[in-house]
Amino acid sequence: MTRRRPLLIVVILVVLAAGLGSVPTIAQEPPQSCNDPNKQVTLYANEKGPRGRRLGYGRKPHKPRIPGPTIHMTEGDCVQVNLVNDSKEKAGLHFHGVDYTVLSDGTPHNKGCVGPGKSRTYVVSAHRPGARPDGTIDPGSAGYWHYHDHCNGTPHGTDGIRKGLFGGLIVRRAGDPRPDRRPFVVVFNGRTINGRRAPRTPIFKANIGERIEFAVIGHGNLMHTFHLHGHRWADTRNGQLSGVDDMSAVIDNKTLGPADSFGFSVIAGEHVGEGAWMYHCHVQGHSDAGMAGLLVVRGPDGKMSASTKAAVRRWKRIEGGGHH
Amino acid sequence: MTRRRPLLIVVILVVLAAGLGSVPTIAQEPPQSCNDPNKQVTLYANEKGPRGRRLGYGRKPHKPRIPGPTIHMTEGDCVQVNLVNDSKEKAGLHFHGVDYTVLSDGTPHNKGCVGPGKSRTYVVSAHRPGARPDGTIDPGSAGYWHYHDHCNGTPHGTDGIRKGLFGGLIVRRAGDPRPDRRPFVVVFNGRTINGRRAPRTPIFKANIGERIEFAVIGHGNLMHTFHLHGHRWADTRNGQLSGVDDMSAVIDNKTLGPADSFGFSVIAGEHVGEGAWMYHCHVQGHSDAGMAGLLVVRGPDGKMSASTKAAVRRWKRIEGGGHH
Amino acid sequence: MTRRRPLLIVVILVVLAAGLGSVPTIAQEPPQSCNDPNKQVTLYANEKGPRGRRLGYGRKPHKPRIPGPTIHMTEGDCVQVNLVNDSKEKAGLHFHGVDYTVLSDGTPHNKGCVGPGKSRTYVVSAHRPGARPDGTIDPGSAGYWHYHDHCNGTPHGTDGIRKGLFGGLIVRRAGDPRPDRRPFVVVFNGRTINGRRAPRTPIFKANIGERIEFAVIGHGNLMHTFHLHGHRWADTRNGQLSGVDDMSAVIDNKTLGPADSFGFSVIAGEHVGEGAWMYHCHVQGHSDAGMAGLLVVRGPDGKMSASTKAAVRRWKRIEGGGHH
Repeated sequence: MTRRRPLLIVVILVVLAAGLGSVPTIAQEPPQSCNDPNKQVTLYANEKGPRGRRLGYGRKPHKPRIPGPTIHMTEGDCVQVNLVNDSKEKAGLHFHGVDYTVLSDGTPHNKGCVGPGKSRTYVVSAHRPGARPDGTIDPGSAGYWHYHDHCNGTPHGTDGIRKGLFGGLIVRRAGDPRPDRRPFVVVFNGRTINGRRAPRTPIFKANIGERIEFAVIGHGNLMHTFHLHGHRWADTRNGQLSGVDDMSAVIDNKTLGPADSFGFSVIAGEHVGEGAWMYHCHVQGHSDAGMAGLLVVRGPDGKMSASTKAAVRRWKRIEGGGHH
Repeated sequence: MTRRRPLLIVVILVVLAAGLGSVPTIAQEPPQSCNDPNKQVTLYANEKGPRGRRLGYGRKPHKPRIPGPTIHMTEGDCVQVNLVNDSKEKAGLHFHGVDYTVLSDGTPHNKGCVGPGKSRTYVVSAHRPGARPDGTIDPGSAGYWHYHDHCNGTPHGTDGIRKGLFGGLIVRRAGDPRPDRRPFVVVFNGRTINGRRAPRTPIFKANIGERIEFAVIGHGNLMHTFHLHGHRWADTRNGQLSGVDDMSAVIDNKTLGPADSFGFSVIAGEHVGEGAWMYHCHVQGHSDAGMAGLLVVRGPDGKMSASTKAAVRRWKRIEGGGHH
Repeated sequence: MTRRRPLLIVVILVVLAAGLGSVPTIAQEPPQSCNDPNKQVTLYANEKGPRGRRLGYGRKPHKPRIPGPTIHMTEGDCVQVNLVNDSKEKAGLHFHGVDYTVLSDGTPHNKGCVGPGKSRTYVVSAHRPGARPDGTIDPGSAGYWHYHDHCNGTPHGTDGIRKGLFGGLIVRRAGDPRPDRRPFVVVFNGRTINGRRAPRTPIFKANIGERIEFAVIGHGNLMHTFHLHGHRWADTRNGQLSGVDDMSAVIDNKTLGPADSFGFSVIAGEHVGEGAWMYHCHVQGHSDAGMAGLLVVRGPDGKMSASTKAAVRRWKRIEGGGHH
C-alpha cells in the first residue's frame, strides 16, 4: 500500500499547482469597499474664483487646492475616496498606478462621472509585489502616481485638468526611505507649476541634511523637462540606486509628458551646501514664462543664512520682472 | 615531459583569447542572404484609396495594412524580407534594432530604395547577448522594434511614414514570457492610432488571466504619451521585473517620441477584473482628437459580461460624437 | 579589567556611528578652489560672426566653438573653470550633474553672471558613489552631463543657449570602458545639430571594431528623438549592461528634451560592418530640416572603402539638395 503514496502526492501537487496557476490571476480584484474606516478620504471638487475658471480638489467644501491633497498609501492598503462635487460642472476621479475595478475607473463610458451637487465613492487599493506561478514578477503598486478628472469638458477630462482637477498619489513600499518633510508635489500643466507662475510658484524649504522628496507630475498638452539645481537622483522607481554598482542612469533633468509622473528623495544640500536652488522646466520658453520655483536649503538649525535670504529676494525680484 | 603541459595549455588559451578578442568585433557582419527558406517574408508596398493618399505594407498585393504585418524573430534568427513595390512611388524598408549591412539600411544614400514596380531583398538578423573580450556586454537583439520607409517624399521617408508605411518588429529572447494572443501593435502617428481615430481605432480583446502583449511605436512629428487604464508594467526591455526587489520604475504612462518603441506583457484584468479599459494618448488634445482605443477584458470563458458590452457601446457612442 | 573592554568598544562604535550619521550629509560641500593647478580650465565666451548672432565657448579668445570644449572629469576630481567673457553681452556657466556651491551655480539670483570684458571662476567637483549611514546609496557623479549659459537674454540664458553657449561635460567612473577616440558630442538645439544643418553637420569617423562614444545633449524649446543607424545601446548610465541577464531596455532611438543628456559607447560596425551610418533626429520635420549627420565606419586599417566613399558623397549631395 505504501507504494501508492508517491502517486497520490504527485496528484495532489499537480492539482494544487493548477489551482495556483489560475486562481490568483483570475480572482485578484480590488474590493468594492474598504473595511477600515481610517482609510476613508473625502474630496470636494470645488470652484475657484468668481466664474469657475479654476477647479480644484480639496478636503473641505469651498477650499479648492491646486494640486489637490496628496493621497498617501502603503502597499497593502485599501482607500475609499468619497468625491463630493461642489462645482457647477461634471467631475470625477481617475487614478494612475493603483488597483480598481471599472466601477472606480472614473471615465464616462464606465459611468464614473459625478454631476453637480452629487457624490460618488471610488475604491482603490495597492498590492505588494510577488512572483506569479509562471515565474514572472507581479510588480507592486509602489510609485509616484496621481489622480485627475476624466469627465469635465471632454470624455478625457481636458477642461477639468486644465482648470486644476489633479493631485498626487504616493504609494510606498515597506522599507522605502521616508522623507523628513511632506513631499513636494510639482505639477507641470500648461505653462504653469501647480497652476501658478514665478514668483508665485512654490518655494520649498528644508534644512541641510534632511531627506526631502519630490513628486513630479505632467498634465495638459505640452511636453516639459523637470530640472533641479544642485541635486541629482537615479532614474528608478523611487530615485534610489540598489547599490554602488547599480548602472541605472543618474539624472538631474527628465522629460515629462502629460500624465507622466516620477518621484525621488534626495538629501537637501548634499555635496552642495545651503542656498536658493532653482527647480524649473528646462524648455526655455516655459521657464521664461514662469515655470520655475525654489528649493531653499537652510542651515541645520532651520535658519536661513543672510546670503540665502538675499538670493531668495533677488530671485523674486528677477522673476517678478515680467515674463517673456 | 608532463611538466611542460601547463605551459602548452596556457599558450593555446592565449592564442584562443587573442582570436576571440579581435575576430568577433571586426568580422561580425550579418549575412547577405538567409539559408533557411522558412525565414523568407514578402511584403508589398501598396496604395490604399483612389489617389494613393495612404500607403501600407501588406503580405499580399493590393492588400495594404496600417500598420504592416508584424515581423517576429527570435535571437539567432536571420530573415530575408523581399519588398515588392506595388505603389506608384518610391518606397523602402529601414529596420530598427536588428543587424544589417549598409545594403539593407534602406536609405537613399545607401541605395536602399525601390522604384515603382520594382523589388528588393533586405536581410536582417538578430543576435544573442554575450560578453565581449574586454568584459563589456554585447546586448542581444531582443526588443520591441519596428520597420518603416526611409525613401518616400524625403530622404527620411516622411511622406511614406505619414501615409502608413510602418510596422512592428518583435525580437524575442529564449525564455522570455510569451503572450497567449497575437501582440497588440499600436502606432501613434500624427493624431491617429494605426491611421485611425476613435471609435474606429483597435478594440483589443482578451480573456481575464491571459498574458497579453502591447508593442507601442511612435512616428511622425508629434510627441505622445501612451497610457493604459487598469494595468501597469516595468520600464524595462520587455516590461518585466527581474525580481521583487528590482528597483526599475513601474509605470502606466510613457512618453513616446517619433521612432521610439517599447513593449510589455501584462496579465489581462490582473488586480482589476473584467471590463472595458481604455488605452489612449494622454496629451489631452490628442485623446480628444480620437487617439484612444479599448482593451476589453472578457470572462475566463471568453464571454463579455452584459456590463462590459454596455460599456463598449457607450464608449463607441461617446467617441463617435465628434472630436475636438 | 579586561571585562570592561567590550563596553568601551561599543561606546566608541556608537560615537563613531553617530558621527557618520550626521557629519557627512551636512559637511559635504565642494571646495571654493581646487588645489591642483592641472585641474584649471579657461573658457572664453566669444562672439561668432559680424553682429554676435552666434556665441560660443572656446579655449582661446575669438575662437568660439559650438558646442564648447568638452570638459572631462573622473569621480574624485575638482575642476576650476575660469570664464573670460569676451563678448559684448552677459554670460555665465551653469553645470549639470556635478557638485558646486551656490557661488558656482551660474544663475542671476546667485550672482553667477559675468559682464562683458569680465571674468569669474567656477569650481565644480565630482564624487564617487557610496553608502549613506541610513543604508541608501549616494550616487556618484559619473554621467554624460553638460554646461550652458544661464544669464544671457533671460534669467534662464535662453538667448545664450540659442546662440550656442553650451558644451559637454563627461564624468567617468574608475573602471568604466574608455573610448578609443574623443567622444562625439551631439547637441540638438532648435532644428540644428551643433548649430549646423546637414550636410554641414559633423561626420564622425572611426575604424571598425573601435569603441566609440556619443554624448547627446538637448537644448532650446523643442523635443527631439536621437536615432543612430546600425548600432544600439542600453538605456543605462553609460549605455552598458551589467550582464547578459540585465533587463534594462536596449534602444537605438531616444527622446531628448531640453537639457536632457545621455551617452553611450558602442563598437563601431559591430554586427553590421563598414559603411556610412546616419544619426539623426527622428522627428520627421526636424530630420528633413537638416538634423542629420553621419557615422562613417572605415576598415580596420583606417581606410574608407570605395563604396563607403561613394555613400558619403551621395549623402552630401542628397542633404545638400535643400531642406523641407
